[in-house]
Amino acid sequence: MLDAVPAGLRGVVVTDTSVGDVRGEEGRYHYRQYDAVELAERRSFEDVWYLLLHGHLPTDTEAAAFAAEIRRRRVVPDGLRAQLPAIAAGGGPLLDQLRSALSLAGAVRGCRPLLDLSPEQRRADVVALGALVPVLVAQLWRAGQGLPLTNPLSDATSDATVPADGHDGHAAHYLRLARGEPASAEEVRALERYLVATIDHGFNASTFTARVVASTGADAAACLVAALGALSGPLHGGAPSRALELVEEVMDAGGPEYAGAIVERHLARGDKLMGFGHAVYRGDDPRSALLRRTARELGGPRVADTEAVEAALVAALDRLKPDRQIRPNVELYAGVVMERCGLPTELFTPTFAVSRVVGWGTHVLEQAAEGRLIRPSAHYAGPWPLEPVPLLPTKAA
Amino acid sequence: MLDAVPAGLRGVVVTDTSVGDVRGEEGRYHYRQYDAVELAERRSFEDVWYLLLHGHLPTDTEAAAFAAEIRRRRVVPDGLRAQLPAIAAGGGPLLDQLRSALSLAGAVRGCRPLLDLSPEQRRADVVALGALVPVLVAQLWRAGQGLPLTNPLSDATSDATVPADGHDGHAAHYLRLARGEPASAEEVRALERYLVATIDHGFNASTFTARVVASTGADAAACLVAALGALSGPLHGGAPSRALELVEEVMDAGGPEYAGAIVERHLARGDKLMGFGHAVYRGDDPRSALLRRTARELGGPRVADTEAVEAALVAALDRLKPDRQIRPNVELYAGVVMERCGLPTELFTPTFAVSRVVGWGTHVLEQAAEGRLIRPSAHYAGPWPLEPVPLLPTKAA
Repeated sequence: MLDAVPAGLRGVVVTDTSVGDVRGEEGRYHYRQYDAVELAERRSFEDVWYLLLHGHLPTDTEAAAFAAEIRRRRVVPDGLRAQLPAIAAGGGPLLDQLRSALSLAGAVRGCRPLLDLSPEQRRADVVALGALVPVLVAQLWRAGQGLPLTNPLSDATSDATVPADGHDGHAAHYLRLARGEPASAEEVRALERYLVATIDHGFNASTFTARVVASTGADAAACLVAALGALSGPLHGGAPSRALELVEEVMDAGGPEYAGAIVERHLARGDKLMGFGHAVYRGDDPRSALLRRTARELGGPRVADTEAVEAALVAALDRLKPDRQIRPNVELYAGVVMERCGLPTELFTPTFAVSRVVGWGTHVLEQAAEGRLIRPSAHYAGPWPLEPVPLLPTKAA
Repeated sequence: MLDAVPAGLRGVVVTDTSVGDVRGEEGRYHYRQYDAVELAERRSFEDVWYLLLHGHLPTDTEAAAFAAEIRRRRVVPDGLRAQLPAIAAGGGPLLDQLRSALSLAGAVRGCRPLLDLSPEQRRADVVALGALVPVLVAQLWRAGQGLPLTNPLSDATSDATVPADGHDGHAAHYLRLARGEPASAEEVRALERYLVATIDHGFNASTFTARVVASTGADAAACLVAALGALSGPLHGGAPSRALELVEEVMDAGGPEYAGAIVERHLARGDKLMGFGHAVYRGDDPRSALLRRTARELGGPRVADTEAVEAALVAALDRLKPDRQIRPNVELYAGVVMERCGLPTELFTPTFAVSRVVGWGTHVLEQAAEGRLIRPSAHYAGPWPLEPVPLLPTKAA
């Protein structure tokens, strides 16, 4: 037994990966051999998805073929489509509804244990489920709002067709389905940047969960559904809506000049400041810088408010915690960008799942190829030695 | 970074637990301060469930109140009931259907993040979902077989009533629902022993998965659904149906005298011998001994066959692997007992989930009380340094 490891396995290396890495001291993170922020600025979501799956960026021909595959995979099987309104009627957070829908999608697709599949079959399952996630999110959202489903339930192929505006990419398709109308080219590009930038980010709790389940040889849906569960945990992080609430709190109080007082109150109560600070990056989170630039390009009053509040909050934090250099994390401008792209607050975390499912899927494939069970131990710290089991008088009678 | 830990975290202590332990050298395992086999022989499933939750066996009054609570919790909410036929129609293994149904059950119940709940609320969620599992298994099975649901879908309370035969315990109720008719008292007691004996068994992969998700503060359904996913992995173990297949293979070949040749062929091919051998126990698995006794009490031709095949297989294994002392594990007689209780092969692993969900739930509560994220690291082993992201000619144009 090795019980000298840190609590929560912090810093314990559980596996090798070539999916990507976070280099906190350098203030950057990467997917495979490319800087993730550069990818977000320069390539489509599908190109980066391909990179993660294959380890290299696609050629023109490969990119076109993969984009076409993703379009085809967006078709929700009839049996699953018919159940989405009932899942939405069951209520609960959209992320939990997505968990149920994705679990069903795995069964309807006939996903089999990864252990029994070839690498190509595993890849097909992971891509198929990943491509469905934005469609399931958008349709569950609309069903829950009592809105008409964007495409008729009876027409299983219409989701996959190229719309009149010519935007058939993953981000454009998702925005169109969720909003019920096409988004502008700059909105599509802004959301696509967000999606590319959040595909993967080191060995977080949901990624680890996906790999633990994959290590048992279970099917792709089991792995991704488990990861969604972990993502729904408040300690996982990932709450862009709560970061926006902080901006609103400051604006409602009267504006940026009240930021200092609000930060002091939160810190005195021991609250976490949502949207600020990161365990790995000291100083700027590279995702935050990317999304701030993106938000600024989109413009609008919320963006101006957020920049003003950010500056005031950072000044207050530098004064109150001078040794910490606490800066905005990915959440703050993620919320601003999503809101500016017409996505309601309830869709913020599910939209994060739209991109992160691609990262999970890549890790699942890597873990399945490794083929070794992740199975640590626990130390029994309860009463000992054993007592004989007493029979209750009534049971002995 | 601590990268000197064994692959797959083998032997790495991730947490303290007082749920129970496996003492391989002593050939025994325990729940809290009681021997698990003694509990299986002497107490009801509900009593042991109570023990796991509260750390002590219930008094008569506590036992009656808890049994009544479990009965009440068996009622499937109408919204969920109506979806079971559609889930069954979606196909796939019953365990995957159960994953979807349990995920929906969490949403319909309105499970909230464990982090936001009191210990009593957490316990209520975990018990509610655990009590539903046998009902969901039985109803999904019947729906998938085109059998009438045992209780009319419109009558949401009938599952919870005490039947005319007076058996209202968890095992009796499950058998009655799954079979569509009441089981005999000795069948009920045999299945109850199996269920008690398989509630928990050290820190296996599904238990670890449940705790990882619980460590994020996610809701109880997210944790249990993730654990079900891990249980569905072939490397997790737990395939009583495959153990029975080995017995059938020997009998089909002509009987126990062919066991040696069959074992030799399997070993030569590098096959795992399903139903034999365990990572922890050298010699007899205490669960196997309990279930062998239980099967013998039930009697029948399959029991006699299995005992004869077991003796021949053990003799062959002792000859071929004299240093290993490979003995039957829990799977072999688990399959025999479940079959003898009238459960079809497809229900074997789901029935394992009926008991194990109680163990997972206990671990989830313990992890939630600990309140610390389980989040190890990975070592990046891919290409480095970063390359600049090339723009495709078509994208730059």
